[in-house]
Amino acid sequence: MKNYLKPDEWCIVEDGFHAEYNEITESVMSLGNGRMGQRGNFEETFSGKSLSGNYVAGVYYPDKTRVGWWKNGYPEYFAKVLNAANWIGIIVEVDYETLDLNTCEVWDFSRVLNMREGYLERSFSARLKSGKEVKVSAKRFCSIVNDEAGAIQYSVTPLNFDAKLTLTPFVDGDVRNRDANYDEKFWDEVHKETGYGEAYIELRTKKTGFHVLTGMKFELFRDGQRIDFQSLPVKLEKYVANKVSLDARQGEEITLVKYACNLSSLNHPSDGLVFRAKKYLSRLADKGFEQMAREQAQAWADKWKFMDITIEGDTAAQQGIRFNLFQLFQTYTGQDERLNIGPKGFTGEKYGGSTYWDTEAYCIPFYLATADPKVARNLLIYRYKHLPKAIENAGKLGFKAGAALYPMVTMNGEECHNEWEITFEEIHRNGAIAYAIFDYVRYTNDEQYLVDFGLEVLIGIARFWSQRVNWSGEKQKYVMLGVTGPNEYENNVNNNWYTNLMACWCLEYAMQVAGRVKALNPEKYRVLCDRIHFREQKEFATAKDIVAKMHFPENEELGVFLQQDGYLDKEQLTVNDLNPGDRPINQKWSWDRILRSCFIKQADVLQGMYVFEDRYDEATLRRNYDFYEPRTVHESSLSPCVHAILAARLGLKDKAYEFYLRTSRLDLDDYNNDTEDGCHITSMAGTWMAVVKGFGGMRVAEGSVHFAPFCPEQWRSFAFKIRFRGNLLNVKATQSEVMIENLSAQPVSIFVYNQAVTLAGNAAKVILVS
Amino acid sequence: MKNYLKPDEWCIVEDGFHAEYNEITESVMSLGNGRMGQRGNFEETFSGKSLSGNYVAGVYYPDKTRVGWWKNGYPEYFAKVLNAANWIGIIVEVDYETLDLNTCEVWDFSRVLNMREGYLERSFSARLKSGKEVKVSAKRFCSIVNDEAGAIQYSVTPLNFDAKLTLTPFVDGDVRNRDANYDEKFWDEVHKETGYGEAYIELRTKKTGFHVLTGMKFELFRDGQRIDFQSLPVKLEKYVANKVSLDARQGEEITLVKYACNLSSLNHPSDGLVFRAKKYLSRLADKGFEQMAREQAQAWADKWKFMDITIEGDTAAQQGIRFNLFQLFQTYTGQDERLNIGPKGFTGEKYGGSTYWDTEAYCIPFYLATADPKVARNLLIYRYKHLPKAIENAGKLGFKAGAALYPMVTMNGEECHNEWEITFEEIHRNGAIAYAIFDYVRYTNDEQYLVDFGLEVLIGIARFWSQRVNWSGEKQKYVMLGVTGPNEYENNVNNNWYTNLMACWCLEYAMQVAGRVKALNPEKYRVLCDRIHFREQKEFATAKDIVAKMHFPENEELGVFLQQDGYLDKEQLTVNDLNPGDRPINQKWSWDRILRSCFIKQADVLQGMYVFEDRYDEATLRRNYDFYEPRTVHESSLSPCVHAILAARLGLKDKAYEFYLRTSRLDLDDYNNDTEDGCHITSMAGTWMAVVKGFGGMRVAEGSVHFAPFCPEQWRSFAFKIRFRGNLLNVKATQSEVMIENLSAQPVSIFVYNQAVTLAGNAAKVILVS
Repeated sequence: MKNYLKPDEWCIVEDGFHAEYNEITESVMSLGNGRMGQRGNFEETFSGKSLSGNYVAGVYYPDKTRVGWWKNGYPEYFAKVLNAANWIGIIVEVDYETLDLNTCEVWDFSRVLNMREGYLERSFSARLKSGKEVKVSAKRFCSIVNDEAGAIQYSVTPLNFDAKLTLTPFVDGDVRNRDANYDEKFWDEVHKETGYGEAYIELRTKKTGFHVLTGMKFELFRDGQRIDFQSLPVKLEKYVANKVSLDARQGEEITLVKYACNLSSLNHPSDGLVFRAKKYLSRLADKGFEQMAREQAQAWADKWKFMDITIEGDTAAQQGIRFNLFQLFQTYTGQDERLNIGPKGFTGEKYGGSTYWDTEAYCIPFYLATADPKVARNLLIYRYKHLPKAIENAGKLGFKAGAALYPMVTMNGEECHNEWEITFEEIHRNGAIAYAIFDYVRYTNDEQYLVDFGLEVLIGIARFWSQRVNWSGEKQKYVMLGVTGPNEYENNVNNNWYTNLMACWCLEYAMQVAGRVKALNPEKYRVLCDRIHFREQKEFATAKDIVAKMHFPENEELGVFLQQDGYLDKEQLTVNDLNPGDRPINQKWSWDRILRSCFIKQADVLQGMYVFEDRYDEATLRRNYDFYEPRTVHESSLSPCVHAILAARLGLKDKAYEFYLRTSRLDLDDYNNDTEDGCHITSMAGTWMAVVKGFGGMRVAEGSVHFAPFCPEQWRSFAFKIRFRGNLLNVKATQSEVMIENLSAQPVSIFVYNQAVTLAGNAAKVILVS
Repeated sequence: MKNYLKPDEWCIVEDGFHAEYNEITESVMSLGNGRMGQRGNFEETFSGKSLSGNYVAGVYYPDKTRVGWWKNGYPEYFAKVLNAANWIGIIVEVDYETLDLNTCEVWDFSRVLNMREGYLERSFSARLKSGKEVKVSAKRFCSIVNDEAGAIQYSVTPLNFDAKLTLTPFVDGDVRNRDANYDEKFWDEVHKETGYGEAYIELRTKKTGFHVLTGMKFELFRDGQRIDFQSLPVKLEKYVANKVSLDARQGEEITLVKYACNLSSLNHPSDGLVFRAKKYLSRLADKGFEQMAREQAQAWADKWKFMDITIEGDTAAQQGIRFNLFQLFQTYTGQDERLNIGPKGFTGEKYGGSTYWDTEAYCIPFYLATADPKVARNLLIYRYKHLPKAIENAGKLGFKAGAALYPMVTMNGEECHNEWEITFEEIHRNGAIAYAIFDYVRYTNDEQYLVDFGLEVLIGIARFWSQRVNWSGEKQKYVMLGVTGPNEYENNVNNNWYTNLMACWCLEYAMQVAGRVKALNPEKYRVLCDRIHFREQKEFATAKDIVAKMHFPENEELGVFLQQDGYLDKEQLTVNDLNPGDRPINQKWSWDRILRSCFIKQADVLQGMYVFEDRYDEATLRRNYDFYEPRTVHESSLSPCVHAILAARLGLKDKAYEFYLRTSRLDLDDYNNDTEDGCHITSMAGTWMAVVKGFGGMRVAEGSVHFAPFCPEQWRSFAFKIRFRGNLLNVKATQSEVMIENLSAQPVSIFVYNQAVTLAGNAAKVILVS
């Protein structure tokens, strides 16, 4: 835990430069607009610890996998979101001496991520080796209004000298991924050009052939007055710049405003990108930095209106939850169904920016409640479009007849993970993708989605499960061999309870949806059946048999479901038995030892209890929680939120709060010592769930939204907003009462502590905490 | 199956050039002398399909592993036997036109590996593009008398022209491994020099720092008369040569004799290697090619005397078995306890030339019976010297207090495999290493080995097993979780029957040996116990408890032991149910599907039945054989021999012969389509076992050797030789009788068909086949 970032309700504040933590701060202070993003790097030269990162959504590279001996069914490549051209760079030279905070004396340093208005601001004073002192202030953002652009306002004031000030704004495409498997560079240069106050470079990704044009245009101001300048064009390999030298006078502020854009062939024809970029940047320059910043603030205000969570009485908690919400909406805006949510968003390279089951299991519930339904729908459509690839994936593994296995890690629908021993057998992801459809329809009542897209996906998934099980002569049951459950600290186990449960649920849900679609639109149903050669009677007979005769490991004596057949053969210890020096075990123990231990990385049986909570009585939930919680090391950021929700459900308020704390400031406090690689974007949705589904007790059932809030005693109050079928609700809980506010004009009926409550439009009600 | 190689009792014959199979032929016609070796490449330029390979025993490179995400306990590197300098090369130019069989018309081509005398011979006629015709004959060998040297006699005769003939003998160290993980070259140049008729290059391996000096010295003859010549020295990067131009007249034979050596820093101080090489090559040149060849023939005759197997009535079988014996003795001579037997010997790169459990499970029984006992003893000493590393290996995985886990793949005692998902958990290898000690002592009665070395290894191994099991509260037994058995088509399974059996046997044997050593030499025992902090009472109490309460999966109804706990949950099929197009499944099926299937790569439960045959009655052996044999796909070359021995034991003569056939000509017929990578050296020892332990029924029990031969009906007779405790026996079996010949002077008592037979020195007896 590092406590160098200051608590603030709306900002992330680094006061004084913490060079040793710079890569962490860079992750935390990342900016993004759903279309492009970047780490909180410095504009000027910095020779200290830094991971430079600029990313363009959807632009990836299929890096060669690293695997000892490739085997049939292994992925062909490991997709990486590319580190793209750096467009923020401005070299600052004072009498030909380069400003570099790593070699200067620095004071009055401040770096602030303003989450309310969506920008990053930095200011400092520095004394160069020559003794010359400058004051610098910089502000920048990735525009969510013009989402292929960013803008920077960068000011330098000489404090104790008159001198030659040279500013060289540049675009540098000669970058590499730190996580490249074979240290290769992934970009080829296509074109570059420079002009007066502008420069453009067009790069093309190797293999995938994406074109990205990164352009910049800049203006100069002296004490706020725009000035003309002479510039020297610079062209190097994959690098363009413009060098400007000025006579700078003591106390006078020189400001460079830089507009930049990333135009990619994903959104534009790849010829004519330079021409487009020039026009695009001209329009931005006409609009001007201040106007862009105002529009940015307004756009963020519009988002906060629908998603904000307020916490009274705990600034750190308030900051933590807003940070999570802010990063989630920076990463994915829901505008483009070709995009998805990489586990690190635009904040780092790790996990390749690919799509994981995190999207369905964690992010969709978040976007459903905080954004327009089309956002979650676009995430579903993303998977719908990948269905043919999922069928192909399953085919590579030997499955037939339209069985679909969605990839664990993907960019374009193909499986592209890099790690057999965990990922390959984590087939439970298929269940999450089906469940997300259920979740979406339950929330929105958009049954048309099932008719148009959902059923086809569900049938593909059901076909997979039907083929994936086999009949055990020994058990006289269906079994599912050789899987990895959500707990990635076991692999190739038999009958993972969660996976078996998910598989049966998928079969049941597919049958239910088929019936519903047949009723809603018999013609479309018939056409679909024909197209995908779906033989309802035969396939559903098999499905029913599997559901009826599936093996679920459990121990009656303990009254718990077993994570897998052999779980109780393991030495039974609890986390309390662990030497603290052995934690986290994934850094301290051999993989071999981890696999054999009973310790659980992340919720597994409890993931099932969370998803299918209403199937189990409280005593069963409690017994399983009591058994598995002490064995869970929570070494995945996706784990504590699930335990928080279950603990809240079981009335274990202190436990719920404890788990919540582990998630909400995970990155701000660098809890797992890995924030320097980037932030845990997808698990931030889990934090939201811990508040809304945990403390707020929010559930959706039979077309209504339910709440059962309690306010952790460390807080005075907390409040969250929920969008539900055209209504916007604000739910605020104190220790003693709950206030539900209907912020929309139409009336709404909800349930609070299982009691029906009807609210007129724009009305509020207060209910005493039960 | 390819049938282009001609049957011959003593030779491998390629008649006519089979360019498409050239890499296979190169593997098969490899030469070696235990210290160095090479593939059967051409001396002259060849631009066709070829894998050039020269290897120096013990000289390896720790290549970076390829693994998605490295985890604690994974190997740090993957060791490769290096492709070393090519010393056979001779560029042949006719009026400046290069001789290259890929661009010529070729006739009268013959390439012959003479196994009786240990050399490779080649001759052909070729018409160059210019129409000029030459006749070439070449003969070479790696000397087992001067085991750092090789020699070549290379003759060119112009058939239809007088012309300028240019011969450029060279040494080329600018080579790479085809299997390099990151396409890197592994050698740095240290020194090179050329002189009149000689050239030297000294290379150093990256990282490991081995120096290898490869030198050559050559002479020229015209129609057998030595001639003087002028030579042009050539030096390129890691390359030295001498270019000689001669006026060649039609019908006149120009012969180049090239002597070469590999001196490595493994055997010599690394300074002064050039000086040593010059002296060494001068002595060889003084001895001359013919004398070297005579010595080579004599040395091979001495080997054949002790190990030959003769088969009457089946030339292909005779050729097959001799090929196996020849390759085994080319690979390992037992002179140097730092060396071991790589699965491909000197015939290719694959499997890195490292040491596997193949050595203990397959090769030691072979060398015990066919060579001086010190050969097997050196193989044991090799592991003894690695004991500290084995303890370190176990430590990396979390084991303590002197527990030793020998690596699955090693060069210097460190684990260096490249494939988590199979190799990591194949801990049964530890048992093979213990069992080899037992096997050696049973065979030789060298109990002093136990006192001096054996017990210490056995205690380290016993400590590993004691810690590796855990108590299952569920089963009220000790269990062994997360292992891979000999069947590599399963992994991370629980309670592999073979592994559990081996573990218990190791514990029992360690206790037995401790008692024996205490009796033989109490003082040494005490010193050892002190040194390794061995607390006999406590540690053996644990061991006894484990042996008494180990869980062994079995099915009483079927009367079989179960390969692992979940084996019967798998869909039960037999190999006959497989579509022939699906075989070999390791090339046709996804890894995922293979893991879930019941199909067995190589003997697993049956490996245990083979090793501990005397523990089980015939009915039990038969039930298990009948159950597992039909499920075994034999996609490891180590598998059929074990089944052959068991089939023979059960009287299933046809089956035994069928399995034997799959092993004996595996490489000659390229049965698995992979001989081009190199020959399956270690499994060749399995072929020997199939003959001697299978058809010969050879066993050692209570200090005596037993035989129970039967002659397959496809043969008139077969005979093999056995060295046993100072005696040399020849056992010959026909359909009707068995002749046992005592080729040594001292009398011997043996058992034939369980009847005691005593033979005086140099006497023979005939026994009718029972």
